[in-house]
Amino acid sequence: MSTPLLNLTPLQAQLRAFAQARGWEPHHTPRNLLLALVGEVGELAEILQWRSDAGLATLAQDDPAEWVHLGEELADVQIYLARLADVLGVDMAAAVADKLAKNARKYPEPQA
Amino acid sequence: MSTPLLNLTPLQAQLRAFAQARGWEPHHTPRNLLLALVGEVGELAEILQWRSDAGLATLAQDDPAEWVHLGEELADVQIYLARLADVLGVDMAAAVADKLAKNARKYPEPQA
Amino acid sequence: MSTPLLNLTPLQAQLRAFAQARGWEPHHTPRNLLLALVGEVGELAEILQWRSDAGLATLAQDDPAEWVHLGEELADVQIYLARLADVLGVDMAAAVADKLAKNARKYPEPQA
Amino acid sequence: MSTPLLNLTPLQAQLRAFAQARGWEPHHTPRNLLLALVGEVGELAEILQWRSDAGLATLAQDDPAEWVHLGEELADVQIYLARLADVLGVDMAAAVADKLAKNARKYPEPQA
Repeated sequence: MSTPLLNLTPLQAQLRAFAQARGWEPHHTPRNLLLALVGEVGELAEILQWRSDAGLATLAQDDPAEWVHLGEELADVQIYLARLADVLGVDMAAAVADKLAKNARKYPEPQA
Repeated sequence: MSTPLLNLTPLQAQLRAFAQARGWEPHHTPRNLLLALVGEVGELAEILQWRSDAGLATLAQDDPAEWVHLGEELADVQIYLARLADVLGVDMAAAVADKLAKNARKYPEPQA
Repeated sequence: MSTPLLNLTPLQAQLRAFAQARGWEPHHTPRNLLLALVGEVGELAEILQWRSDAGLATLAQDDPAEWVHLGEELADVQIYLARLADVLGVDMAAAVADKLAKNARKYPEPQA
Repeated sequence: MSTPLLNLTPLQAQLRAFAQARGWEPHHTPRNLLLALVGEVGELAEILQWRSDAGLATLAQDDPAEWVHLGEELADVQIYLARLADVLGVDMAAAVADKLAKNARKYPEPQA
């Protein structure tokens, strides 16, 4: 069987169990989760705001602690995105596949 | 072998090939991709801004076209997030696993 | 009398009257307005995402229509920010003056 | 003489002098400032993410420190927006007036 292009289900199941065990489900509404996602995107922006793309390319060596921080913020965006899609009931594997197919029609590969 | 919690590699490989085939790689810098992600989060916010959580719960039935649109915007955020992490060289599977472990330490499960 | 540093009151009064005349006040809750602000910041990001700072410096001459569009998106962010502060009841003149004073203490002017 | 609807010039002049005195001007490029604005919008979202509109209406009494924090984040968004418009060379008074006129044409006042 081929590897699917994207499978968020295991992550979503773990996030759901984590929220349930802590009684957080009433707080995990779509709008709350979207605002939380916006907060995490803001933290990601704070890491990139005064850095050049060249500086980012050597961040792991130049500032290992900030490199870990960068990974955490990317992870937070991924976590809230997966949770938001789960709460909304959107099938992300299908949505991403559909969007990629649409992009391929919109931007056809240039012919040699 | 157990299913990994998250595997963005197949999606990232496809996005990289898509960008390469169209000569887009020079434009896919971290800061450009972050701004593109912010743009997609903004489009997601536009869908939710005047809707209540209750209205979102019945969106698929009430407005099927907007429901498709919602899936597209969630997909776009996922696509740019995966691409951004790939260009930065961040291992998202590890970053998400580390962040979940950190969250579990920060918010221990309440004891019965 | 000296010019105040910032006076959003006339704009806020006009936005409030505009919303009242159209029956929009029930929709202008803080969270709705913040999501609307996020949407406008996203549109601003879409204008800047593939452009360099150098390209932005000559945008007015190079692409007059996009220059007008840029002004509109900046205006939209200002409009939702003013409206959000008004609905929350935050005195923006005082908040900005306080923040500037705090910044001046945090980042003292270097001595010659 | 009538009060103008919006005048960001005094704030922009002060922000420009503050940046000049600290040698920050090379860092205050449009894209850096937009990412900084996104960071501040994220901090604003973090304040609102788990609060209801009803809870926000009594925040000043319920949590005076968080109320001050809310004002600071709104101020930060205003500061970066004013600075971004200044660096881009966009006349915000004109841009806001034009956008309000456009909104008035798009959403005419309902007739009694």
